[in-house]
Amino acid sequence: MRDDLQFDGHGRLRHLLTIEGLPRQTLLDILNTAESFISVGEREIKKVPLMRGKTVVNLFFESSTRTRTTFEIAAKRLSADVINLAVAQSSTSKGETVLDTVRNLEAMHTDLFVVRHRESGAAHLIARHVPPHVHIVNAGDGRHAHPTQALLDMFTIRRHKGDFEKLRFAIVGDILHSRVARSQIHALTTLGAAEVRVIAPRTLLPMAVEKLGVHPYTDMRAGLHDVDVVLMLRLQRERMNGAFISSEQEYFNLYGLTQDKLERAKPDAIVMHPGPMNRGLEIDSAVADGPQSVILPQVTYGIAVRMAIMALIMGGAETATGGRRA
Amino acid sequence: MRDDLQFDGHGRLRHLLTIEGLPRQTLLDILNTAESFISVGEREIKKVPLMRGKTVVNLFFESSTRTRTTFEIAAKRLSADVINLAVAQSSTSKGETVLDTVRNLEAMHTDLFVVRHRESGAAHLIARHVPPHVHIVNAGDGRHAHPTQALLDMFTIRRHKGDFEKLRFAIVGDILHSRVARSQIHALTTLGAAEVRVIAPRTLLPMAVEKLGVHPYTDMRAGLHDVDVVLMLRLQRERMNGAFISSEQEYFNLYGLTQDKLERAKPDAIVMHPGPMNRGLEIDSAVADGPQSVILPQVTYGIAVRMAIMALIMGGAETATGGRRA
Amino acid sequence: MRDDLQFDGHGRLRHLLTIEGLPRQTLLDILNTAESFISVGEREIKKVPLMRGKTVVNLFFESSTRTRTTFEIAAKRLSADVINLAVAQSSTSKGETVLDTVRNLEAMHTDLFVVRHRESGAAHLIARHVPPHVHIVNAGDGRHAHPTQALLDMFTIRRHKGDFEKLRFAIVGDILHSRVARSQIHALTTLGAAEVRVIAPRTLLPMAVEKLGVHPYTDMRAGLHDVDVVLMLRLQRERMNGAFISSEQEYFNLYGLTQDKLERAKPDAIVMHPGPMNRGLEIDSAVADGPQSVILPQVTYGIAVRMAIMALIMGGAETATGGRRA
Repeated sequence: MRDDLQFDGHGRLRHLLTIEGLPRQTLLDILNTAESFISVGEREIKKVPLMRGKTVVNLFFESSTRTRTTFEIAAKRLSADVINLAVAQSSTSKGETVLDTVRNLEAMHTDLFVVRHRESGAAHLIARHVPPHVHIVNAGDGRHAHPTQALLDMFTIRRHKGDFEKLRFAIVGDILHSRVARSQIHALTTLGAAEVRVIAPRTLLPMAVEKLGVHPYTDMRAGLHDVDVVLMLRLQRERMNGAFISSEQEYFNLYGLTQDKLERAKPDAIVMHPGPMNRGLEIDSAVADGPQSVILPQVTYGIAVRMAIMALIMGGAETATGGRRA
Repeated sequence: MRDDLQFDGHGRLRHLLTIEGLPRQTLLDILNTAESFISVGEREIKKVPLMRGKTVVNLFFESSTRTRTTFEIAAKRLSADVINLAVAQSSTSKGETVLDTVRNLEAMHTDLFVVRHRESGAAHLIARHVPPHVHIVNAGDGRHAHPTQALLDMFTIRRHKGDFEKLRFAIVGDILHSRVARSQIHALTTLGAAEVRVIAPRTLLPMAVEKLGVHPYTDMRAGLHDVDVVLMLRLQRERMNGAFISSEQEYFNLYGLTQDKLERAKPDAIVMHPGPMNRGLEIDSAVADGPQSVILPQVTYGIAVRMAIMALIMGGAETATGGRRA
Repeated sequence: MRDDLQFDGHGRLRHLLTIEGLPRQTLLDILNTAESFISVGEREIKKVPLMRGKTVVNLFFESSTRTRTTFEIAAKRLSADVINLAVAQSSTSKGETVLDTVRNLEAMHTDLFVVRHRESGAAHLIARHVPPHVHIVNAGDGRHAHPTQALLDMFTIRRHKGDFEKLRFAIVGDILHSRVARSQIHALTTLGAAEVRVIAPRTLLPMAVEKLGVHPYTDMRAGLHDVDVVLMLRLQRERMNGAFISSEQEYFNLYGLTQDKLERAKPDAIVMHPGPMNRGLEIDSAVADGPQSVILPQVTYGIAVRMAIMALIMGGAETATGGRRA
């Protein structure tokens, strides 16, 4: 779907809910703005006043210490006040109650909600009901989307490998259940990737995945052949109960990224992972910590990219970055 | 009880523990100060430096994400540092240990405790033992009092309906167990309300409730007749086990606020609720979201009222508001 | 062990992991710097800009609301941004994963980790793997060390009793399992204490404890004779299951600090406790709240000492204190 909900009447980005339907220029604007925030993390005083006096709410219906922390650090470096809310699923079993929670928070004149929810579409639902001055960033909704992760991945790729149009990509792991994969696919195709492959056992590939513009592989060595970028996914251990995967050992043998398998990719291929890693399951430690890994730079860039996204949708990034937006 | 504990030697408000015994002028001072903070929430930069370098501790012995959030936002907009402490009941089974916790925190030169506790009188107990430079705000103690909620309710009433002396009020729900009701009754009678009614099944009315200066009703339609303001209470679902209420459906039929019942009140009557609402139990969604509801404005005013209370008891509000205190 | 890990190439303190092996002058530098921070807690605006724009992470693998709060307050008074992370043991069962957590956080350009962990050596493990710009403060690791507690104890002793070389000390309680005792012993012997005694039942004394330079006593009255400072330890109630102690009552009779036993010490002896106290188990309330107790001043000094430690290892304390470091 083209998601007009994400733009205001003047065509400016107002929420970040999904990559799907975002124009190429919007993605580039975010990446360019993020470049200007990279230096903030390297300064003596890692703070800019762009969101001083604004209130950011980390509204996590699904717990994730790690993702919450990246947004909390990003918001505090923008000088915002941050409120962390871990909302138990139990107290919000009805969609209606999610909206009551949000309406209450927006009545407190909060400015931006970072929303994570177990159900696909939760961030959209909320965005459809907030007044114009409130902004939503989707920090992961069900199997649907995780756009900030995909954007920090794109940032990493551009920094380390350059032009998307000359690059071949392989996304490896549980494509079927992964919101990260879905957002990466939309971002890569929008940015003009030369080829996007997805590699997984047949049970973890969506039906008709080709319609997304990707090439599916069940043989990892074939899928990795000559790629420039390997994007590993985190395997949820709850998939391990037999229906999808027979055993951890077999999964590692077939789909775990080892140095041996990585040699099928281009010699200068980079390896990415959204974290936290299951070492020895989807990735071998030698690769995770090896010279082709850019997994830690991804984390560093993630702060800058999230600062950029928050600053852009709040409308304050122009001042900071000298009006890079188209 | 007249609560002299709440004032210092110069007659200035030092703690906010209960509405009971507070002079009318003190309530008006708080409401007037809150008016001056309303604009802060509407500014680009929602921050005033009144409590910069002060430390506010949210000391919650009973969990309440919502109430904690309102105080956290209010304190941060006053530029205070905020420490959130969720103290497990288990570790404080003895009153002695509550005081040890408090003594430790005050030894860290903290300035203001926002206290919520399951037991009536907890905030008073703490206030009796803190040194002069430490201030206590009661954020709800057992069935006893919830003074900041009552004050934001009074603020809402004055904004939307004007002079208390010309208004008739109905408080509806579990009067027996409600600290909100108790604080509302004290506030309304102190501010000179023309009439205060309480509406509940007989099992949820305190004995001799008339002594508080209110008129009890068990028939909701009779009780709502010609009132200007309807103050709904939240029904705790743990009351539903038969002793107090026979069934949710029956409760809703008899005491749930529907448009039909609301028509017994004055045509311009307003509807209030302290939140979170049990839609379909004590209030119908059509009323909660209808034109007479001021439930969301209550939340907005709640931030300003809590800012006013904290600034006043810390002694800093004069500067900010031009010396409104009597 | 002499712990060179704690110093950088220029001999400056970089991490605070343990007292063991720290030169006397380093301890004195910390105490002197802390003196300059005492006044900050007494100001109207309790804030100095020394760590503005820095990110402090409270990385607690073992929960401790109290210790976390002291570091959070100290860091906020230094104007740092603070991120609280309570890491469930379960998700970090392998040491490898602790390092992944830390590597991720440091990739976010965080500056200082306050680490508490159930396992001895955890803070050292982390310190060995962080890049030069990241600093570690050990907030308690297993039975090994709790250096900030020992330093605030030393600060308290110097303030209330003066020169260590003229003083006799008794540490009382579960010496065997106590990281506090271990750090206190190292600090006292380094600072030249005239005599350090440890008092405990035989089951709670380490073997060959004399090698640490202390005199063991199993008779509390004998051990307290003529001491200037009594350092009580908190007794973990999980030791009460028979193997170490026969009953709470017997423990209190033999090793609980009562006024009667305290009279064996010098008349002007002071009583200390790291908190939280088990009143009626290791200490009688009359003593805890009595005239010889400096237990609450310890808490107050704890903020200043932790501010001093963080400022010193971040390299910013010279500016603030006029270059007191040797």
